[in-house]
Parts: sequence; structure tokens; C-alpha cells
Amino acid sequence: MSGSFCESYEVDYQALINTIQEKNASTVFIQAPDGLKKLYKCIGEHIIDKLPSIKIYYSASPSFGACDIPLEEIEAVKPDLVIHIGHNKYPFLSREINYDIIYLPAYYKWKPTNDIINMLINELKKYNAEKIGLVTSIQHVHSLKEIAEKLGEHGYIAYIGKPTYNVMMPGQILGCEYSAALKIYSKVDAYLVVAGGIFHALGLSLIVDKPVLILDPYRLQVTYPSSDIKRLKAKRYYILSKLRNEVIRNVGVIIGSRPGQYRPTLIKYIENLLGEHGIKYYLFTSTYLSREQLISIDNAYNLDLYVITSCPRLPIDDFNDFYKPVITPGELVMILKNIMEKYVYPW
Amino acid sequence: MSGSFCESYEVDYQALINTIQEKNASTVFIQAPDGLKKLYKCIGEHIIDKLPSIKIYYSASPSFGACDIPLEEIEAVKPDLVIHIGHNKYPFLSREINYDIIYLPAYYKWKPTNDIINMLINELKKYNAEKIGLVTSIQHVHSLKEIAEKLGEHGYIAYIGKPTYNVMMPGQILGCEYSAALKIYSKVDAYLVVAGGIFHALGLSLIVDKPVLILDPYRLQVTYPSSDIKRLKAKRYYILSKLRNEVIRNVGVIIGSRPGQYRPTLIKYIENLLGEHGIKYYLFTSTYLSREQLISIDNAYNLDLYVITSCPRLPIDDFNDFYKPVITPGELVMILKNIMEKYVYPW
Repeated sequence: MSGSFCESYEVDYQALINTIQEKNASTVFIQAPDGLKKLYKCIGEHIIDKLPSIKIYYSASPSFGACDIPLEEIEAVKPDLVIHIGHNKYPFLSREINYDIIYLPAYYKWKPTNDIINMLINELKKYNAEKIGLVTSIQHVHSLKEIAEKLGEHGYIAYIGKPTYNVMMPGQILGCEYSAALKIYSKVDAYLVVAGGIFHALGLSLIVDKPVLILDPYRLQVTYPSSDIKRLKAKRYYILSKLRNEVIRNVGVIIGSRPGQYRPTLIKYIENLLGEHGIKYYLFTSTYLSREQLISIDNAYNLDLYVITSCPRLPIDDFNDFYKPVITPGELVMILKNIMEKYVYPW
Repeated sequence: MSGSFCESYEVDYQALINTIQEKNASTVFIQAPDGLKKLYKCIGEHIIDKLPSIKIYYSASPSFGACDIPLEEIEAVKPDLVIHIGHNKYPFLSREINYDIIYLPAYYKWKPTNDIINMLINELKKYNAEKIGLVTSIQHVHSLKEIAEKLGEHGYIAYIGKPTYNVMMPGQILGCEYSAALKIYSKVDAYLVVAGGIFHALGLSLIVDKPVLILDPYRLQVTYPSSDIKRLKAKRYYILSKLRNEVIRNVGVIIGSRPGQYRPTLIKYIENLLGEHGIKYYLFTSTYLSREQLISIDNAYNLDLYVITSCPRLPIDDFNDFYKPVITPGELVMILKNIMEKYVYPW
């Protein structure tokens, strides 16, 4: 695939080849998120071209982040080296992985044009925002500096915060980690999330009470999805306020098995919290969680609600319309400790 | 759940409690197929009733057999004991599992009445079948002897074969293992599969050219799904004969990671076979395989066909309508070695 997809992402192929050689690896295991699985071919062909005797296994499983390393697949085929494409190392890996992993980001090749900066400024004017916090997913971290400079030329002040965790890059946020945004909270009038879609903006909006605009480098548009944000917050508060007025007798606690989604300290905390409130609970493990699985469990147990400890985005993005309440650990704390003023996220 | 579901299956609760005590286990991990997940509550309550301090983790993942042990989940929560409900040990486990596993079958409580035996005899008369091979899934193994006796009273001869693998029981077949049927092949005029649904009958029909009737103990009916069987065989031969007339340039080989679905010897054989025929191939690992995953890979590679080495039922039951050919390892052999007369199954 010498075509446009390979060309549209910047991947450090040389570093990859060097590492394979340094590690003296003869088999490699490559994983990428679904949106970047086309890079399998680009990267695979590059490796075979330079090192024809390398055997490559590609993970066919989805990857929702560097939290989501498919341990069972890796331990089946026992590669000399694991290459995780598209993310940097996850700050909260809680399970030991006895394999060398290279985290190989894929940067989207894109430069902010004057056109999109003008669109951005038009939008910022609507909210009287002059001091802007810039945050982004890893695919676009390299564009933040240029956006900041261009905003500066127009009299705006842009801030790029450093995440708490040093495996992450300046301005970088994850679906479950927003310290780069929170660090500059007091300085900014609004946030700009440079990312495709509204996933990161929705997460940030759950924590900050300031406008969260999106600059989408794929669609080349600037938006403020305020109605989506309002609907999301309203939905979460609706679920929580209903639960507060009900007697919670029994709860299903979902435990993830992926190396960054198995969170034993959090699970213990939730177990203690439920125990203190005299609530019966059942522990369910899962690799990935589907609607069918939740229905299957609920058919057996008829529980009052489900708390998902694997990934805080699952209740919000995937199960917000489930026929039983599906909540995050933070939301459980809100209900049981009766702290409804401030939305607790992410956990 | 003291209700009817718990009562409808015979589970050796006493043996279970004894084993937990013998192993001095304080945490147990329980897995059941989706159709038996309601037993989680029955079994869980029984354990807690007898041994109140036991901590139980239940797998929320599907289980398609004893091949399908969720290693990653087990290794996350590190139980003292794993209880796999509904199957006996899988004969072909290829990965080491460093945990004690009890295989705890759940037998459906059911006795063949004169009514259903009469229905069966009426059906057998249509095919002039007087010598009948009895096979079944593990849930119903205990009923075979009584069916055989009742058939004997009516002048029929029933055969119950012993599977090649001693972890399995007399007359027992799996979706991928039919030795109990093949051993009595020369003696019988027809087979009777005692099982819910047509899954096991379809599998058996791919190997034997004799009528395969079903006695369904849940629906209490006897059927011969000959049109389903014909359609299935025609579909498989259609896919294969199309492939024989096309040039196969590149193939996706799907590798499963579950302990009984990772089949390294078979994978090696398929790799060699493809290599000998000058066919390029790519290796993809997967925990479970979904349609979305196949589409995602195919978007990147645009391959000619997919061979699934994890479970031979996936191509036949789940992906027979995929927009690219998805075949079993046995079917790949049929095409490449040009042996089309005899359908090669299971592999």
C-alpha cells in the first residue's frame, strides 16, 4: 500500500526497523486501533522490505487505546517484540506484560491553514474567548504549537498544558485522562480540542465548565457541540438522580482484563464502598464488553445497576441507552456519597 | 434462584463444594456458556451458602466450549480455582493453563417419554432406518442409554460409540469432534442427534452421508432438517468450486488465542501449504472474531479469502454469508489439493 493512506500518517519507520534489529527480533506482533488498521499493510510491507525474514502477526482485535493490549493473543504466539501503533504508553498499566512493547505513534500529516484559523477565530469570538487551552489526541500533538503561534499572531493567548504523566505529550489528553487540560483550567476562557469526532470533547466537557470547541483536522471544521454536551450531561444526571431516589439492593461490577483496564485498586475501593452501604454485589470479568453480555448477565441476576471499572467511557458512550443503569465508578461515588454538585470524572 | 432453571439442570454441587474445600480455595472463577449463565446464580448461591467467605468472579464473556477458556480474565484476577460449567475437558487444549480447572457438566433433567419415542420411531420408518447411531451433546449424555433401551423394545438396534478422546463420554460429540459417530458409521442406517437446535446435526452431516435426525429435548420434537443440511452442503461446495476456478493470490489466516482455539500445528501446516502453492498470506490473531474485525482487516488488505484456524464452526455458522470467502482449514486443503469428492471436516 504505497497509496495515500500510508502517506497521510507520519510513522517513524526508521526507528521501528532499528528497534527490531536491536532486539534481534525474528517475530513481531503488531496492534493498531481499527481506524489505523490500514497502517498494518504500510508498516508490514516496510518491515518485510527491509527485513524479509521477519514473521509478523497482526492483531485482528479492536484497540481502544494503549490500555487495551491483547495479552492473551500475544502470549499465544510469543513474539520477540510487540509494536503498538497509534498511541504512546498508557500511564496506568496495572498488569505485568512480559514482552517488549514499542509504542509507535502515527501522526496525522496536517498543518493548520489560515482558512481554518480564521474559522476558529470566528467561533472563539462568539464566546468572547481570548485565552484558549489547546488539547489534543496524540495523532495531532505536533500541530498544537503552530495553532498556538497562529492564534498569537491574531492577539489570542494559547496555553498548552503538560500532562501529569510523563509518558504523555504536551497538550495530550486521553478519553480517560485530562490533566493537560486541568492544569491550565484557571488561565483559560475556553478549550480547543484538536481531534476527529466529539469523543475527547465530550470527556473534557464532563469535567470543565467552559466552552469546549473542536477543531477537526479530518473534516476541516471548527464546531462547538454544545447541544451534544448538554444532552450528555443531562442524561448522566438523569440516570444518577433516578438512582438516588431508589433503593439499590444489588449491583454488578464489571472487571476488565486488558492490562490497562484491569484496575484492582479501584475495584477494591468500589467493593468496600458497596459493602459499607450494605449493597450486595457480583463481580463479572470481561475481555470486551458487549450489550449481549450485559443482557446475558442481567437475565440471570436481574440486578439494579452495573458499574464498569474497566473503561469509564463504556457507560457514557456505549451503554448510556441500556435498559438498566450502567454507570462509572465516579458516578457510583456521587450517588452513594451524595455529592451531586460536581460531576466526578474520569475514574 | 431456587426457581425452575436451577432445578432443570443436574449439577454435582457436592463435588463442587468438596473440590473448593480440598483445594483450600478462597477465590473461584466461574465460566459458563451463555445458555447456562443463569446457573451462575444457582451455583454462586450454593457456594456462598456453604462457604460464605469464598470470593467469586464470574466471566461475562461468552463461552463456546471448553476450548474457550478466558485465559486473560483468569490471569487478571488470579483465582485459586477455575470452574468451567457445562462442558467436560476439551481434548485438544494446546496452551498451558497454570490454574486448576474443574469441568463441571450440567445435565439437562429429562427422560425420554413413550410419546417422543413414538415420534422418533415414526420418523425412522420414513428412512427405513433400523440400526441407529445415538450421539449427543454433553447436556444429554445420560439419556442415551434409556433411548437405546426403548428403541430396543421396539425392535430397533441402537449404537452408542465411544469417542476417541477419553475426556469425552460415550456418545458425546462436539461441534468439532465426531469420533463417537464415526466409530459406528459402518453399523448404522441413520444417526439420531439428541440436542437442542441443529448445530451438532449440521456438523455431523458434513461428514456422514446418512440421515441425521434430531431429537430436541427442549422443544420435545423429532426432526430431520434435510433441507438445512442440503443448503449448507451446497453453500460450502459453491464457495469451494468458485475458489477452485479463481487464482488465489493472498490469504488471511486467522489465529485464535483461546487455549483450545490456538492450534499451532494446524497453523504451521496451513502456512506450509500456502507457501508451497506460492500464495502470499498474512497472520491475524484474535480473541473472538466479529464481522467488523474481518471487514476492518479486509479494508486494509483486500485479500482473496480468509482461513479460520481457531474454530471450524466459525466459517460455517457465522461467516458463511461474508462478502469474501471465509473457509475452514479442511476446505483450504480440499481446494489446494484438489480433493473435492469427500468433504474434509472437521479440522
